[in-house]
Amino acid sequence: MNTPELMDRRRALLGPNVSTFYQRPVHIVKGEDVWLWDADGRRYLDCYNNVPHVGHCNPRVVEAICAQTRQLNVHSRYLHENLVNYAEKLTATFGDGLSNALLTCTGSEANDIALRMAEAMTGKRGVIATDATYHGNTSLVSQLSTANTPTYGYGLDQYVRHVEAPDSLRIDDPQGFRFAAKVQEQIDALEHSGIGFAALIVCPLFLNEGFPSQPSGWLRPTEKVVREAGGLLICDEVQSGFARSGSHFWAHQKQGVTPDVVTMGKPMGNGYPVAGLVTRPEVMERFRGSYRYFNTFGGNPVACAAAMAVLEEIEHRNLKANAAKIGSLAMEAMTGLSKKYGVIGDVRQSGMVFGIEFLKDKNTLEPASGFADQVVEAMRERGVLLSKLGRHKNTLKIRPPMTFSEEHLGLLVQTLDDVLSALTPQA
Amino acid sequence: MNTPELMDRRRALLGPNVSTFYQRPVHIVKGEDVWLWDADGRRYLDCYNNVPHVGHCNPRVVEAICAQTRQLNVHSRYLHENLVNYAEKLTATFGDGLSNALLTCTGSEANDIALRMAEAMTGKRGVIATDATYHGNTSLVSQLSTANTPTYGYGLDQYVRHVEAPDSLRIDDPQGFRFAAKVQEQIDALEHSGIGFAALIVCPLFLNEGFPSQPSGWLRPTEKVVREAGGLLICDEVQSGFARSGSHFWAHQKQGVTPDVVTMGKPMGNGYPVAGLVTRPEVMERFRGSYRYFNTFGGNPVACAAAMAVLEEIEHRNLKANAAKIGSLAMEAMTGLSKKYGVIGDVRQSGMVFGIEFLKDKNTLEPASGFADQVVEAMRERGVLLSKLGRHKNTLKIRPPMTFSEEHLGLLVQTLDDVLSALTPQA
Repeated sequence: MNTPELMDRRRALLGPNVSTFYQRPVHIVKGEDVWLWDADGRRYLDCYNNVPHVGHCNPRVVEAICAQTRQLNVHSRYLHENLVNYAEKLTATFGDGLSNALLTCTGSEANDIALRMAEAMTGKRGVIATDATYHGNTSLVSQLSTANTPTYGYGLDQYVRHVEAPDSLRIDDPQGFRFAAKVQEQIDALEHSGIGFAALIVCPLFLNEGFPSQPSGWLRPTEKVVREAGGLLICDEVQSGFARSGSHFWAHQKQGVTPDVVTMGKPMGNGYPVAGLVTRPEVMERFRGSYRYFNTFGGNPVACAAAMAVLEEIEHRNLKANAAKIGSLAMEAMTGLSKKYGVIGDVRQSGMVFGIEFLKDKNTLEPASGFADQVVEAMRERGVLLSKLGRHKNTLKIRPPMTFSEEHLGLLVQTLDDVLSALTPQA
Repeated sequence: MNTPELMDRRRALLGPNVSTFYQRPVHIVKGEDVWLWDADGRRYLDCYNNVPHVGHCNPRVVEAICAQTRQLNVHSRYLHENLVNYAEKLTATFGDGLSNALLTCTGSEANDIALRMAEAMTGKRGVIATDATYHGNTSLVSQLSTANTPTYGYGLDQYVRHVEAPDSLRIDDPQGFRFAAKVQEQIDALEHSGIGFAALIVCPLFLNEGFPSQPSGWLRPTEKVVREAGGLLICDEVQSGFARSGSHFWAHQKQGVTPDVVTMGKPMGNGYPVAGLVTRPEVMERFRGSYRYFNTFGGNPVACAAAMAVLEEIEHRNLKANAAKIGSLAMEAMTGLSKKYGVIGDVRQSGMVFGIEFLKDKNTLEPASGFADQVVEAMRERGVLLSKLGRHKNTLKIRPPMTFSEEHLGLLVQTLDDVLSALTPQA
């Protein structure tokens, strides 16, 4: 089937506004490690996808999925060792009493539960989130998004308040005190409104919002404010977890805080639909006493086999150290590019997430979001897949599989150099 | 690992109230077609699980999952043929303009979307459901359950009204007019309250509520009432779909109605987490215009490969006809048992779902739910897995994989006969 025909059929069968990446969407047919191939046999370097956390079609994960799929796949109302073994290995990556796990299929489901845990623990419903975030697609959690605020949603928007996300280029808040004060303001507003404060939900690295440069421990003042108000701290580690930060297995550990609930998803099964959360036993007990929650596919033997293989692969191949090393080399290379191209306003990195913020003017900090779009499209045309994000939609988001190597980084940087050179006026 | 140790570790890691089937939960290790094996090598006849729709570890589905998992698995923001091909084959099983599909990971997610479609189409929020149903586990759809009403849920219970589920043994409503009138009462109440009527959501065969005996077309008067009030008819076919009824591919077709949205889940990928909905283009367009919905794992290439293999297997092995044949033979056999055992108050069947309602007294129709429990446990001890359900929790629910044969039925009936004989006083 040719690509235009596929696009037409897709539109007819799925309806409008079903988003694709790129002006010319990539029609893919094959994946291997950090590589994707399209229908014409062209190869792309994948610098964006975090779902294939340990590489597209990682052999260890593929083998685990296939072996268990052949053996048995069934829900968790029977006993099966995989769920228990995985829950044990997963919770062992946490500390601070975060010892209970609940498995779902999607990060959306996990966040939807986390917010109900907050209601069950506090008896209140007010949830605070940052103002350019995304936490999923259920009726409840979709209300946390600001970028694409739903038109409808059973009135659940009444329970949501937003705080300005950190922005290390524009907002002077090196220790996180300003952010904590902003959270306090919204706590006060929620309490004053009668709704009351139930939880703050954040990605510890603010990865949808331009991954600001922050020292370790930046979230500590915020944690204090949340605790003193009696609310829950929910860390959405769907993107930031599983050693992505390079320094810690979970990014909240880097931030020096102890969440009440940590949610996880995308990379957990390397593409097999599995997600979940980890929490303290008293939170789990309160939730389990308030909801008779059951998830048919959640924690099934294949999901657990896939997720276990991902943990093993991170461990055996030392991918946390790789994230730290590549992130650091990427920072060096991007700093080099920033000296060559005036349109680069800032370069930032959090382990295996890094990127470049483009500015029209370094004094006014006016975002060059149209330019970022051009770069993303030009990179795609040259066979390198990445995306952009951030509060001003002017920041390249480079978030490759954790197996991304020095050689891959070299190709990425060389292509970026070529594209920036072609797109910027010559000096 | 031995079973008691596994149960202890499970309790410690997952928390309390994580339900298992049976007083002595089955610790399973292997599945094949209609058979499950426990850790001691004992074989069980699976007469309950509908997720392995075409049989545990069905070779066609296993092969499809393994082949695609080795080739590529990625989200739907790139183009891939599997999603489009599957959406085409799936929607071809519908008529009446139900031509647009949206894929999720769980039936809960699908129902959560369906309710938002109803709000988007009507501008109202009132949802009517039957009074012993279950439609999933998100904050919104968990409020539809009555059996395990959540203690919390962001106030969403205010939008839900219940109608008495049909009960062909106790309620005289052969054409469905009484049920339609009950729905009309709740529509009026919702409109009067100011909330307004958005949708009725039902399983077309009422499979959680004792699968009452009903002639084809029973839901037509209800459909008329819903249409005249301007609401949406949502058919939750998570259990009733994919030819389970034996007479039609979708049970709403048997009921002679045209839903606005049909949701589906459990059997769709034979255990691979995939679910979704089908609707009219104008409903999809309204939803897509109101929500920028994206589901990372939903409709990924492996999910679509698994789901496609399930459709092919139903078709090539003519499993709809098998459901009709076995259902009919089961009805005969259960009728035979009912002549032998006075505790059997009714026997009912809807294709490959059948069961027996136990009564303490045939005149008062007093339910024998404790007896049903005893039967379920005794059957498990004799190596046959089934469950019970219904408004009075006194009805055996027998809902095996669609590959269940005459020979399997023979073993089931013989074991039931033995168990009933052992459990009932001798004449």
